[in-house]
Amino acid sequence: MLGQLDGFIIDLDGTVYKGNSAIAGAKEAIDFLKSTGKRVVFLSNRGNVSRLMCQKKLVDMGIDAELDEILLTSTVIAQYIRATHPLSKIWILGDIGLRDELVSWGIELAAVPEAADWLVVTLHENLTYVELNQAFRAVRSGAGIMATNMDKSFPGDDGESIDVAGMVGAIVATTGKEVDIVIGKPSSYMAKAALQALQLPAEQCVVIGDSLVSDIRMGKQFGMRTALVLSGSTNRMDAEVAEDQPDWIWESLFGLVEHYGRKESAV
Amino acid sequence: MLGQLDGFIIDLDGTVYKGNSAIAGAKEAIDFLKSTGKRVVFLSNRGNVSRLMCQKKLVDMGIDAELDEILLTSTVIAQYIRATHPLSKIWILGDIGLRDELVSWGIELAAVPEAADWLVVTLHENLTYVELNQAFRAVRSGAGIMATNMDKSFPGDDGESIDVAGMVGAIVATTGKEVDIVIGKPSSYMAKAALQALQLPAEQCVVIGDSLVSDIRMGKQFGMRTALVLSGSTNRMDAEVAEDQPDWIWESLFGLVEHYGRKESAV
Repeated sequence: MLGQLDGFIIDLDGTVYKGNSAIAGAKEAIDFLKSTGKRVVFLSNRGNVSRLMCQKKLVDMGIDAELDEILLTSTVIAQYIRATHPLSKIWILGDIGLRDELVSWGIELAAVPEAADWLVVTLHENLTYVELNQAFRAVRSGAGIMATNMDKSFPGDDGESIDVAGMVGAIVATTGKEVDIVIGKPSSYMAKAALQALQLPAEQCVVIGDSLVSDIRMGKQFGMRTALVLSGSTNRMDAEVAEDQPDWIWESLFGLVEHYGRKESAV
Repeated sequence: MLGQLDGFIIDLDGTVYKGNSAIAGAKEAIDFLKSTGKRVVFLSNRGNVSRLMCQKKLVDMGIDAELDEILLTSTVIAQYIRATHPLSKIWILGDIGLRDELVSWGIELAAVPEAADWLVVTLHENLTYVELNQAFRAVRSGAGIMATNMDKSFPGDDGESIDVAGMVGAIVATTGKEVDIVIGKPSSYMAKAALQALQLPAEQCVVIGDSLVSDIRMGKQFGMRTALVLSGSTNRMDAEVAEDQPDWIWESLFGLVEHYGRKESAV
């Protein structure tokens, strides 16, 4: 069955790498897919990096990735704004990668918070009060709120750390506004962007990732096949009791190579 | 009627001063009260300064204020912790003044966020991601949440600025916990602390402040007389349609001197 699929939508954090280290077998699995002519797109809820930053990270790990094979929430937000709100001015609360990505797509940034049509929020590990206050003022002055994701926490280098939902929570609690758009998986924005990049119908694609609530749920909602890897945030026990059951469960991305019945001894 | 009252509970921001400037007539009004033997306590929802810092500010304006005439939310939180949770270890998210005040009352600070029994949150105009994350980790590890107040914004030097409700909103949105205790006016914590400091029954006291929702509401809830001043956040139109009607409305604190029928021409 897997052999009949043509498009592979592959998550990054917890699936291809953890922090700055490639997960064992990930490079071999991606090389294998590409050698057999399968189409690949990397689809990540990361919004605080640009595609260029992400490509460099992959290439440094020896993983072959073209720029147009990488779709981050920063990318998909940029595409969305360009397609639906092309004249909008944007204020950013997030790490520099989000700014780089939006600018690379020709998105116009607001000169001052009060002039923004949209506030775009992503993880910001160098957040300051001044920046939080600017974001507050943008929304108070009428800007809508777009978030790359609404994750409450992420596994940081020194422990579980506060994520985008915290930045958004501060703004929502003080302005009385709600979040207008959440771009990240399992949203239709990410699913459509991936299928558009692959130029394939959903039934010919599989989503592979470590998150039941983002990767597997998105795949099932949009008619794709799904494979859960246990190399990231989900363990086998959680997987077995999950409401959304994936088609396959693998220890890691290399499971797909084993599934094809080849190279079983390579890892 | 005012002449029969003995205790004067006076708000600070918007009532005695604005930013670093005394409000015209405030010094004269306080001098007048003290010259007639009235008891005075300054009661403020500020939690990001210590009493020492506040006393210095008043004295620099020529306003006579003893340390035990000053009750800030930082003070009342310290008193509350000492009285009800004397063995608790505290983690602080807030400007340095809160730390100074808690330490001056002998409150024990936790060495790491994970060891804290309580997170105490106040305004923090130098907030960083690292500090927000530490506060998140304290609550995630079981600390309860105390806030000096839940104001959404305050009038900053360069415009309306995000306040304590923002810091708390970030923590609540990511931990699923709720705020346990809000110390600031109109709470009973502040009312009781003021009456305790004055050593007077409520019916012999008047609350004077610029906020309908904190000063006037607290006074009415706890059986005190109330006077609204229009030198701060409330204008006459808002005052006239308010649900909680104060006993008196004055342009400024100097109105109490005029009310006594003396020195009308002094300001």
